Amino acid sequence: MSVIVEKLALVGTGLIGGSFGLALKQAGAVGEVLGVGRNPARLTVARELGLIDRTVDWRDAGQADCILLALPVGETEAVLRQLAPHLKPGAIVTDAGSTKVNVVTAAHAALGTRAADFVPGHPIAGSEQSGPAAARADLYRGKRVVLTPQPATRADAVATVRALWEAVGAQVETLDAAQHDRIFAAVSHLPHLAAFALVDELAQRPDGASFFRFAASGFRDFTRIAGSSPEMWRDISLANREALLAELDAYTAALQTLRTALSAGEAETLTKIFSRARDAREDWMKKQDA
Amino acid sequence: MSVIVEKLALVGTGLIGGSFGLALKQAGAVGEVLGVGRNPARLTVARELGLIDRTVDWRDAGQADCILLALPVGETEAVLRQLAPHLKPGAIVTDAGSTKVNVVTAAHAALGTRAADFVPGHPIAGSEQSGPAAARADLYRGKRVVLTPQPATRADAVATVRALWEAVGAQVETLDAAQHDRIFAAVSHLPHLAAFALVDELAQRPDGASFFRFAASGFRDFTRIAGSSPEMWRDISLANREALLAELDAYTAALQTLRTALSAGEAETLTKIFSRARDAREDWMKKQDA
Repeated sequence: MSVIVEKLALVGTGLIGGSFGLALKQAGAVGEVLGVGRNPARLTVARELGLIDRTVDWRDAGQADCILLALPVGETEAVLRQLAPHLKPGAIVTDAGSTKVNVVTAAHAALGTRAADFVPGHPIAGSEQSGPAAARADLYRGKRVVLTPQPATRADAVATVRALWEAVGAQVETLDAAQHDRIFAAVSHLPHLAAFALVDELAQRPDGASFFRFAASGFRDFTRIAGSSPEMWRDISLANREALLAELDAYTAALQTLRTALSAGEAETLTKIFSRARDAREDWMKKQDA
Repeated sequence: MSVIVEKLALVGTGLIGGSFGLALKQAGAVGEVLGVGRNPARLTVARELGLIDRTVDWRDAGQADCILLALPVGETEAVLRQLAPHLKPGAIVTDAGSTKVNVVTAAHAALGTRAADFVPGHPIAGSEQSGPAAARADLYRGKRVVLTPQPATRADAVATVRALWEAVGAQVETLDAAQHDRIFAAVSHLPHLAAFALVDELAQRPDGASFFRFAASGFRDFTRIAGSSPEMWRDISLANREALLAELDAYTAALQTLRTALSAGEAETLTKIFSRARDAREDWMKKQDA
C-alpha cells in the first residue's frame, strides 16, 4: 500500500488511537506516527508497544499532515484550542469520539475558519478494555466508521480520512451529525445507561450479595457494557444529553407497556412483544453475519 | 459411579431435559432413561441423539424411580395431573422450571399428599438455543442448581435429586421458594424483559432499520437474551408476576434517577452511579472466576 499521509499525530494513544496507529503502520499507509498528550507514562508505553514512533509536543504535533483525537469527547474543545495555534496550513484534524454534534460545535469554537479542516469521525469499535496495552492492529477490520462532515468541510480532507480508515480495514459511511447522535443514543448510549442502572440498583441493596450470587450468563452478557469506563460514559451522556433523554423516555414507556400487560396478565400481549423482539434481533444478526 | 436411580423418566427432552438424561447416562448414574411427552417427533429425535433410551406412555413413566419435568413452567400442573394417577409408591418427581412458588402450588394442587415426593428444582444453565439437538452432556458442569424443598418434602427424595445433579457436575444449593423467585426476578427475569423491551421499541419505529444498521457488539451482548423463547418467557413472567412487577418498578426508579441527574447535567452523580456499577460488576466477575 502507498503512503496516504506522511506524518500522522495521535492525541490519545489508548485502545482507539493506539490501534489506529498500529494498524496504519502495519499497512504501510503512514510514514511516521507521532504521539502527543498530557500523560508521559502512557506515551512511553505506546512507544514501547510500537503504536507510535515517537513522542512530540503540541507544536510538532501541529506540523503533522493528519491529527487524530482519540480522547473522552468532553476534552475535545480544550485539546483543539491547544493545537490550533500550531496547525500547519493544510493539516487535517479528525476525531474518534462517540458523539458528533458537540464535537462539531467544539471544532467551530476552537478552530474558527480552520474548522473546514476538521473531519468528525466515529469508529464503531472498542471494548470495555482501554489503554495502550489493549490496542490491536485488527481492531477496525470489518467494522464501520461513521464520518459526519459539515457542508463547509474540505472534500479532500474527508477523502484522506476515509482512505486512512479503509486502509485499516474499516467500512466508511457518512451521516448527518445530529442523525448520528440520535442513532447512537438508541443503539449504544441507552443500552449502556440501562446496564449501569440495573447493576447499580442491585449493588445498592443491603442484601445485594445474595442476588449477585445467583446471577449467570444471561446477566453477564446483559451487563457486560456496565464494565465500561465511567468517565467516558459520563462524557458521552452529557455530550448527547437531549437525544439520550428522549431515548430514556421511549425506553421507560416501553417498560411501562410491558408492566401494564404483565400486571393485567395479558399473556398474548407479552408473547407478541417478546416475539417481535426476538424476530427483530434474529433479522439483525443475520444481516450482521451476511 | 454407581447407579443413583434405576429408571429415570424425562417429561420434556429439549436442551434442559435432554442434557440431564445424556449427562446421567454418560456418568453411569442411571440404569435407563425414559422419555414421555406430547410431541412424538421430538421424542424420536431425542432417542436418536441418545438423550433417552426409549419412549414410554404416562403409565410407564409413572413407574420410574424419578421423573424430571423439563417444560415451560406454565405446563407444570397439567403434566402433574396427567402423571398423578400412575405414580408408583416412592417415585420421586422433580422439575427444572425457572420459577418455584407457582410450581410448588401446582404440585400441591395436582399431587395432593404425594406433593411430599415432589422436589422443586432450578438448574441455572441454558442458552437461547433450545430443543433436543442443543442438548450437551457438559451443560451442567460447574453450574448451580437451586432446590427449594418445602417443610413436608421427603428428605430422602431431596437427597436423591441432589445426588443426580451432583453426578452431572452441578453445585446444589437450597433456597426458600419465595426467596428463589425474588432473586431470579432481579438477576434473570427483569434483564430478559429489559432486553425484549429495548429491541421491540426500536423494531416498532418506522425508521427502525436505520438504527439497527449501526448497532454493534455492545448492543449484541446486551440484547442476546432477547433471542430467547417468547413462550417460555411469557410463562416465566406470568408465573413470577408479583416479584417481577416489583423489580420492574425498582428498575424504572433507577432509570428515573439517572434521567434526573442527566437532565440536570450532574456529572458527579453520573460518574458515581456508573463507577458503583462497574465496581460491583468487576467484584462479581472475580467471584465467578474464583
